[in-house]
Amino acid sequence: MRKMRIGVIGIGNMGSAHALSLFKNEIAGAELTALCDAIPERLQWAKETFDESVQIFDHTEAFFASSSFDGIIIATPHYDHPELAIRAFELGLHVLCEKPAGVYTKQVRQMNEAAKASGKVFSMMYNQRTNPLYLKLKEMIDAGELGEIRRTNWIITNWFRPQSYYDSGTWRATWAGEGGGVLINQDPHQLDLWQWTTSMMPKRVRAACYFGKYRNIEVEDDVTAFVEYENGATGVFVTTTGEAPGTNRFEICGDLGKIVIEDGKLTFWRLHMSAPEFNRSFTGKFGQPEHTVIEIPIEGKESAHNGIIQNWVDAVIEGVPLLAPGEEGINGLMLSNAMLLSAWTDNWVDLPIDEDLFYEQLQARINESQSKKLISHETR
Amino acid sequence: MRKMRIGVIGIGNMGSAHALSLFKNEIAGAELTALCDAIPERLQWAKETFDESVQIFDHTEAFFASSSFDGIIIATPHYDHPELAIRAFELGLHVLCEKPAGVYTKQVRQMNEAAKASGKVFSMMYNQRTNPLYLKLKEMIDAGELGEIRRTNWIITNWFRPQSYYDSGTWRATWAGEGGGVLINQDPHQLDLWQWTTSMMPKRVRAACYFGKYRNIEVEDDVTAFVEYENGATGVFVTTTGEAPGTNRFEICGDLGKIVIEDGKLTFWRLHMSAPEFNRSFTGKFGQPEHTVIEIPIEGKESAHNGIIQNWVDAVIEGVPLLAPGEEGINGLMLSNAMLLSAWTDNWVDLPIDEDLFYEQLQARINESQSKKLISHETR
Repeated sequence: MRKMRIGVIGIGNMGSAHALSLFKNEIAGAELTALCDAIPERLQWAKETFDESVQIFDHTEAFFASSSFDGIIIATPHYDHPELAIRAFELGLHVLCEKPAGVYTKQVRQMNEAAKASGKVFSMMYNQRTNPLYLKLKEMIDAGELGEIRRTNWIITNWFRPQSYYDSGTWRATWAGEGGGVLINQDPHQLDLWQWTTSMMPKRVRAACYFGKYRNIEVEDDVTAFVEYENGATGVFVTTTGEAPGTNRFEICGDLGKIVIEDGKLTFWRLHMSAPEFNRSFTGKFGQPEHTVIEIPIEGKESAHNGIIQNWVDAVIEGVPLLAPGEEGINGLMLSNAMLLSAWTDNWVDLPIDEDLFYEQLQARINESQSKKLISHETR
Repeated sequence: MRKMRIGVIGIGNMGSAHALSLFKNEIAGAELTALCDAIPERLQWAKETFDESVQIFDHTEAFFASSSFDGIIIATPHYDHPELAIRAFELGLHVLCEKPAGVYTKQVRQMNEAAKASGKVFSMMYNQRTNPLYLKLKEMIDAGELGEIRRTNWIITNWFRPQSYYDSGTWRATWAGEGGGVLINQDPHQLDLWQWTTSMMPKRVRAACYFGKYRNIEVEDDVTAFVEYENGATGVFVTTTGEAPGTNRFEICGDLGKIVIEDGKLTFWRLHMSAPEFNRSFTGKFGQPEHTVIEIPIEGKESAHNGIIQNWVDAVIEGVPLLAPGEEGINGLMLSNAMLLSAWTDNWVDLPIDEDLFYEQLQARINESQSKKLISHETR
């Protein structure tokens, strides 16, 4: 059977790693056939690294015109993701897109529609979905082990980034270059896992976002968001790039107990009787359902980026189900957009958000952005 | 030297325990000389339990008229605390008041003014201030071990209360009887410790409070509050009586690291260089200050209620400093009032709060309260 031919567009940190994985045959059934980037140093690196089996392009037009691949991996700056994906779908190509799906949901919705119309295989690089901790969490929640979910709480503050990080690219942490800060750059995985593991999207969001609080940047580097779900449950999401050493603790409470993921461990406080049932039957004054604390054994390894690429290739070749369907990329982005919009309007934001209002508000900030140069032009 | 003579007003759960401690001479330098309650069963219990050295009153007037004590412990329902304390200060008595200081800050402010005018020794029953974990935390923060505080986060959800608890008194969890729910009844200690250990009061609060969400009650049983401090720090406080087994985890982050109190342990993530200093000097792209994780040894035992009574007595007799000055009772109550007011107005609430507005809003709820009988009349 012929191998799936893959082109990688954008060979910065992530794209170059994906290209190497493919080139080294780490992905069964796939081969790297083309690369595209606009930055001379990267092109030079590519010429020195790959052989003649890989075509190298410095322009998107020529890359797409080459017809040298069946699918592409998009690893360009965020803003370009939807546009490139739409182009690919129109050409009948499969797409694996780096996170985030895009910067604003309005555009990502168009990408999803193009994907659907094309019938091609569309996946998001949500490599954390291969993390056995979150796979197990989702499996347990799906199996009803927590019962109805009542509260979620994710403190994800271990994203310390020094000023030198932000200063390493003029596009970094600018409205024009990235379209956001910690939410769009560092948190996409958590924003995805938060709703993916629980199968619950909030119905409304209220967030406090602080812009350039810890660093000399124009976007948000500190966020606390409160959410309400359809079933009455509530949730909190706290994140920042200003704290050290920070915390990564995800707590989910349900009628049947509580799960906490922290320090690479998944701990389950399992009630022997559901809290509502205990409440109905208990006649004493003080009392609560008994529980057992269990550290759930976690089996398997995180297959990470290669795992997602392999899954995408297997979906194309063998029709296996996608672990991270591309259309789901809009969910985490919706949360991040809602948080910013809530802060900008100092108000509750209902989901789905008013996508035009968000776009308008974002555009106003892009127009005033200090970014010297739009990175989105660098890869064209 | 003559012992300090103490009268206890209100001998329900807490008052009866304090009376017994005094009667059994567990408090050096103090003696129980009088009790007051209006409930026949309690008076009967008192007659059977104490001897003739303890005068028993069924009415406040007679109790105060007896002049048989130098100070009183107030353990009546919440609403009566300030009124009784003010009466006592006017009579030149020392006061130790059970938490909460009262139900609304307007009245508590009057109590504080009366205390100041009297020159008498006024303490609050903040027995959790004797908990070595929080004493150590305060000591570390006061000593600057965390540097400037940047974030606080208290998840205090291990207050599971079944419906049978709420049904055990017609006054329970009613606006007229208690003036609130989990914030006024279960959380006063945490609301006190939150600001006492950090020496920081928020400057504004935004909270979502849910009334009768988990139980058939009219007051709040689920709260998530977000706060901003003067120095730019933020905080989150999450509490409910509906969850089992719940969580009690207090995290405080500063420029020099992080402290978490959970499961009876105090853990310190100590940075080797402050985060701002690292940020200023680091020139690489990715990097963060090194840290050491230390479980801080906790010495001493929680002297609890007796510890606070002893401290109050020692303050009266020997002039030792109070661990829980009565005037500080308004701080935790201010936070709880602010959270309710924020939920009622669906808006930010600046601190100090608009006390008249809070009182007005509370009064409106009292007027519509389902409470059959005001407990405040039961002890008069």
